[in-house]
Amino acid sequence: MASMAALFIKTPYPSHTHSITKFPNTHFAPTFRVSVSVPSGRIKRRLRVSSGLIEPDGGKLVELLVDEPLKDLKKREALSLPRIKLSSIDLQWVHVLSEGWASPLRGFMRESEFLQTLHFNTLRLQNGSAVNMSVPILLAIDDSQKHLIAESTKVALFDSNNNPVAILKDIEIYKHPKEERIARTWGTTASGLPYVEEAIANAGNWLIGGDLEVLEPIKYHDGLDRFRLSPSELREEFTRRNADAVFAFQLRNPVHNGHALLMTDTRRRLLDMGYKNPILLLHPLGGYTKADDVPLSWRMKQHEKVLEDGVLDPETTVVSIFPSPMHYAGPTEVQWHAKARINAGANFYIVGRDPAGMGHPSEKRDLYDADHGKKVLSMAPGLERLNILPFKVAAYDKTQGKMAFFDASRPQDFVFISGTKMRMLAKNKENPPDGFMCPGGWKVLVEYYDSLVPTTNDKVPVAVPA
Amino acid sequence: MASMAALFIKTPYPSHTHSITKFPNTHFAPTFRVSVSVPSGRIKRRLRVSSGLIEPDGGKLVELLVDEPLKDLKKREALSLPRIKLSSIDLQWVHVLSEGWASPLRGFMRESEFLQTLHFNTLRLQNGSAVNMSVPILLAIDDSQKHLIAESTKVALFDSNNNPVAILKDIEIYKHPKEERIARTWGTTASGLPYVEEAIANAGNWLIGGDLEVLEPIKYHDGLDRFRLSPSELREEFTRRNADAVFAFQLRNPVHNGHALLMTDTRRRLLDMGYKNPILLLHPLGGYTKADDVPLSWRMKQHEKVLEDGVLDPETTVVSIFPSPMHYAGPTEVQWHAKARINAGANFYIVGRDPAGMGHPSEKRDLYDADHGKKVLSMAPGLERLNILPFKVAAYDKTQGKMAFFDASRPQDFVFISGTKMRMLAKNKENPPDGFMCPGGWKVLVEYYDSLVPTTNDKVPVAVPA
Repeated sequence: MASMAALFIKTPYPSHTHSITKFPNTHFAPTFRVSVSVPSGRIKRRLRVSSGLIEPDGGKLVELLVDEPLKDLKKREALSLPRIKLSSIDLQWVHVLSEGWASPLRGFMRESEFLQTLHFNTLRLQNGSAVNMSVPILLAIDDSQKHLIAESTKVALFDSNNNPVAILKDIEIYKHPKEERIARTWGTTASGLPYVEEAIANAGNWLIGGDLEVLEPIKYHDGLDRFRLSPSELREEFTRRNADAVFAFQLRNPVHNGHALLMTDTRRRLLDMGYKNPILLLHPLGGYTKADDVPLSWRMKQHEKVLEDGVLDPETTVVSIFPSPMHYAGPTEVQWHAKARINAGANFYIVGRDPAGMGHPSEKRDLYDADHGKKVLSMAPGLERLNILPFKVAAYDKTQGKMAFFDASRPQDFVFISGTKMRMLAKNKENPPDGFMCPGGWKVLVEYYDSLVPTTNDKVPVAVPA
Repeated sequence: MASMAALFIKTPYPSHTHSITKFPNTHFAPTFRVSVSVPSGRIKRRLRVSSGLIEPDGGKLVELLVDEPLKDLKKREALSLPRIKLSSIDLQWVHVLSEGWASPLRGFMRESEFLQTLHFNTLRLQNGSAVNMSVPILLAIDDSQKHLIAESTKVALFDSNNNPVAILKDIEIYKHPKEERIARTWGTTASGLPYVEEAIANAGNWLIGGDLEVLEPIKYHDGLDRFRLSPSELREEFTRRNADAVFAFQLRNPVHNGHALLMTDTRRRLLDMGYKNPILLLHPLGGYTKADDVPLSWRMKQHEKVLEDGVLDPETTVVSIFPSPMHYAGPTEVQWHAKARINAGANFYIVGRDPAGMGHPSEKRDLYDADHGKKVLSMAPGLERLNILPFKVAAYDKTQGKMAFFDASRPQDFVFISGTKMRMLAKNKENPPDGFMCPGGWKVLVEYYDSLVPTTNDKVPVAVPA
């Protein structure tokens, strides 16, 4: 996977030139161009300002890392404060907040931000304008933690290894209305919603909001940290590549040739519109996913093969990991997915059928109307600046032996291969039709399912979420 | 109750003078001034434009009554169209829509309006601005009705007596996602929500939106129609009274002296702010209410007594009926209550503790945080023009023997009399402390509970909702 890192290589190069250089690459089939990185903070800032990228929400990317000279002081302070231990999802949110994906949020939501998110999917700024914010970003505490905090105006957040991660200051503690939060975020309170079971059902009855001071960049030490580019780093990458349009593709599944066709076609459409250098942000979600999704590490291997096999063009593609946990909250969550990508510099967003959707946890139907996601996204306040690109339906065209856009005039020629069917085939080491997915990518999927130790005869066992 | 009618008497007077006249009145204790009405449609419109009242949402009050010359034609057309029979709540919504309480809505919501309401509590207008719209106004149909409509672009709406009420044109039929609608509107899906049980649980699986053409003004023939002033008529009334501020008080309960104190105090505050003639819109909700609320007819009798007994000043008070059904949807619904009053000309809105709230239908707690209503209202997009006046807490001050604003420095002197306690007292024909409610008003309450035939020994039986 070292090859992918070359796409966003962060080791300083000898010179600070902006010229485009050709690199031979053994892993990716085509040679590809990569611009050099510019490590100096000052130059970074200049680059960002001079780029023509879409402005972050609120006009300025919020980054919550403590300045280097203050770090030791803040770490010592953290050790003296009341402590809150973060779950792995809490830590993912600290990551998200620290890098400004949720700009202009400066920390876990206080009640006013929570209520606006819940009722309006927007936050009103002091200048009267509104930014989109559809998914509550909350930190829950229980009675004993609340008691421990007492009158303190600050708390320290610790990770599971008892390392201090951040200080939360000017805190506000308020009630955690779990049922209402769930109902208004998911549009159901049926039991079995993955994020609810993982992060809400057993969480504390209080919420604590405040401003974050993050002590160190959040790292996972899983071999994938180098792919976790912050919005600021992505903006630099797009600027270096002289992107005049950035189109984001959110995904949490393996890439098949239907996806690839769509992304390639989008680039073609953007060129037709007059853009000279549209860049694709292929942006797999890296935070919490439900147990039966393919884990991040396997998805990244699969995406690497897709680029190696030349299905997507590395010259015009940036692969990076979006650190947010997944809510599976359909029309509500797709707004978050889009909004976060504005902050990373994307001005076009590809939205598919039933984005961030899933099956209803207790009824035999999809939880959301498959068309609501793109409709809600196109109407969402605060996302007016983003160009929404609705997904065209791709399916396997038997006459061409490849994935193609569905042609309603000859439906008999097309086969729809659902995610469930794809998983069943890979699990059983059967091959999909030629042209459904590049062979290298398919092999990764088969290996993944092979790696799972079956617990019963016929059931794909629960995998550890990435 | 004839006396109250004098407040908004609609019988044409001999002259179209705008002068203020004194009427002696046998029912109301104080003499009071009432301006004459102006029946001509043309003059009405001129008056409305010349008034300094707050603009309706969308800039223009939407009125959906068919013009007189077209009425017969439209009635004949209605008889030729596929028919939908309206429930009593459906008819209340037709009433609400026909008079422009929900301006700029022109009929039952199409899917785009429904989704915006559900997710954002706002509707975006063509000019890019947003108006508040928090409660979905929907008409449900079942499979057989959908089948009957087939390819028709119009349907006729009929009341329970098979009289044509309206034509719904340019219709759009879409799925009725009941669970999601309920979860996002109420923040719970617990069974036992009154509006849900009455109007959603057994409603059809489809929704039909479109533009309304209403054939006749909606009347109920219950002796209270003369109190049902439309937003346009209220605006005329405020203009005639030379109101320079209109403050609305939504209620669905009997008025006690704590309410009266609050309203009187609000007027004093508005005078202090420099307004010369603030007018109170005392605006009881007249549509569907839950079975254990006091029915409209009894509430109106009670309000009449409150004015007769001089607790509120008829000179500066307009009593009228708000035709909307009640959702009991707390922070979501209070926005609707406020927004509708903007359309009626109110620029100040009094909001109390837990507005539009109720007990959780299946848990021993209030459904909503008592403070969320006023917080959400103060943050609601599209309501920026409305001045929100938070309720001060009034309680019975034992040292003064009357209702007074609660003084936290001497809590021992105050008694809080809850709605439940008030009902229990009235039911048992006991008297509340002197000064809690004017004697005439209290007598009405006792009479109401007396009128209910007890079904069991100790339980207040289910009353027929007004």
